[in-house]
Amino acid sequence: MARPMGPVRLRRTNYVTLTIGACLCLFILYFLVQDGSDVSTSSPNADSHPIRKPVTAKSKLIGDRSPVRRFNLNNVTITPDPIENQEVVLILTPMARFYQEYWDNLIKLDYPHELISLGFILPKNKEGNAATAALQAQVTKTQKGPLKDRFRSVVIERQDFDPPILSQDEGERHKIENQKARRSSMSRARNSLLFTTLGAETSWVLWLDADIIETPPSLIQDLAAHDKPLIVPNCYQRYTDPETGKPAERPYDFNSWQDSPTAQELASKMDPDDIILEGYREMATYRALMAYMADRVDERDVEVPLDGVGGTALLVKADVHRDGAMFPPFAFYNLIETEGFAKMAKRLGWAATGLPNYKVYHYNE
Amino acid sequence: MARPMGPVRLRRTNYVTLTIGACLCLFILYFLVQDGSDVSTSSPNADSHPIRKPVTAKSKLIGDRSPVRRFNLNNVTITPDPIENQEVVLILTPMARFYQEYWDNLIKLDYPHELISLGFILPKNKEGNAATAALQAQVTKTQKGPLKDRFRSVVIERQDFDPPILSQDEGERHKIENQKARRSSMSRARNSLLFTTLGAETSWVLWLDADIIETPPSLIQDLAAHDKPLIVPNCYQRYTDPETGKPAERPYDFNSWQDSPTAQELASKMDPDDIILEGYREMATYRALMAYMADRVDERDVEVPLDGVGGTALLVKADVHRDGAMFPPFAFYNLIETEGFAKMAKRLGWAATGLPNYKVYHYNE
Repeated sequence: MARPMGPVRLRRTNYVTLTIGACLCLFILYFLVQDGSDVSTSSPNADSHPIRKPVTAKSKLIGDRSPVRRFNLNNVTITPDPIENQEVVLILTPMARFYQEYWDNLIKLDYPHELISLGFILPKNKEGNAATAALQAQVTKTQKGPLKDRFRSVVIERQDFDPPILSQDEGERHKIENQKARRSSMSRARNSLLFTTLGAETSWVLWLDADIIETPPSLIQDLAAHDKPLIVPNCYQRYTDPETGKPAERPYDFNSWQDSPTAQELASKMDPDDIILEGYREMATYRALMAYMADRVDERDVEVPLDGVGGTALLVKADVHRDGAMFPPFAFYNLIETEGFAKMAKRLGWAATGLPNYKVYHYNE
Repeated sequence: MARPMGPVRLRRTNYVTLTIGACLCLFILYFLVQDGSDVSTSSPNADSHPIRKPVTAKSKLIGDRSPVRRFNLNNVTITPDPIENQEVVLILTPMARFYQEYWDNLIKLDYPHELISLGFILPKNKEGNAATAALQAQVTKTQKGPLKDRFRSVVIERQDFDPPILSQDEGERHKIENQKARRSSMSRARNSLLFTTLGAETSWVLWLDADIIETPPSLIQDLAAHDKPLIVPNCYQRYTDPETGKPAERPYDFNSWQDSPTAQELASKMDPDDIILEGYREMATYRALMAYMADRVDERDVEVPLDGVGGTALLVKADVHRDGAMFPPFAFYNLIETEGFAKMAKRLGWAATGLPNYKVYHYNE
């Protein structure tokens, strides 16, 4: 009886194995389909396969290497109630140095993190390497931490061009003769980051500089509630008053302004390649600076129209960028970077708004 | 002996099942890891999860919703030998009408299709709906067809703004008074498409109009071999000579040109919002048009420097776009769309080149 038992056992074993195998195959198929549908409806980027891996094992198995993705740009809403409408916000940060306070503040933003994608670009130099390492450590920690803290996705890019000035020292950085090269390079970094991370499903882009260390946790929804194409809070800096020894604050970002006849006159006499800079004694523009318009702590929602904007914190409807508005690395109407961006947006029909009493704070170096 | 046999069989079954189960589990894990690494190294877009699905089944299972992707833009090569270096080409086509000949020509391009991503944008009107349906049918057919024909990925977008002129009739479309609105709208479409599909790993962008129905199959590698930031072949049109009844060809695209003192003089007297248009008797610019420079069939590689470019077929190094060069929907130095793009690229330090004897052909309406 030993001989016939073999086949019998074997056959029974086969049935059980086949059943379990079939279940597991269904499980695998579930993942394949799951994955396929994710890719085909979500990733708006045209290049979704790794270089040097033209035909992946998976694509051979499922018999199709090429997901087709369709987007109706009408279906991406951009509304004053972005949480209710589950709108995706892309926070973009060019980063030369990593400040822990920046990250801590970012984590505290109470816009649902599963709707926030992060994009960073860092220079390819020694300082950039250190910042990248520090950033990656925090990203890893957060993305492995409590679910509510984890962001939708994180992209970290390294620049493929050198920054013009090696020193991030504040004095050196702000010298007027270094400004054009510095801000042109910053524009290129912003554009690289923007062009490679903006998707068809992005509703809002929040530009947030790496040295912004304090904002209200409700920053995104507060700004979005104004329903403006470009909106910018007032960037201040906390310090200790040397005379009184008490905490105080002072205006920091002077790039948000309303134009003046003097500045326009100045521009009309300039070479098209020259740029007007704000906040320098050598070049008095008599523009109305938002930095000096903060007057009422309790009227945070007061709006002012702006002609130039700073990029320390700046919320932009994604359609403004999709229309083509970028950060000119060249003199554009004698303006550059974020100020040139506001001008370009205006040329596209999108006006800028400022919130003089809504403050965010810059790191004090 | 019947009773003890049961457990014995069962135990044996268990071993076999466990082994098979373990293998299948490893298989599943392979897919999970495979999938994870795909996402984390390939999709350069920050928004890779579908809207209204903040926490997917998969992310719950693998305990992390948020892939972190790192890119070193230095590692994306852009070389004269893009096939050897496995460089990804993004072909972008704004499409108002679908021509089968366009698709047939696209399929015939012999650049490895697994390195070609396609991006389309179509207007949201009746004609756009028809074109979308026809395009989708062909995309589906190709992506399910022979592996060598299948493209790396395909994105189809629908515009969220209305085209200014409803008729795609050639006469109406080319009327001088309709040109600014038409080309401004075209610029917005190009920018939307570009900003949402360009990735960190894209090396080249080939702009290819939907009415280009004949190109050499080696178009991409031929143009890339010149190693120029922007390069444009000569766009002609085949027709039947009414006098001889024989096949003939004539220049079609007049947007590729070298600037002239007359045009510069014209611009200097214009309102900054006005645009200079090429190919209209009413506005003689005396620019040197590449359309008329084709002289030698056998010297396909002759290069000429250009100041304005057309977009019927136009190969651009992705870095030019990543730097910020886009298609101005507004008058930019009195230029618009692709001609404005060439000017903007030049402002960024990237010059345009034309190949007068290298021809591509436009549909004959």
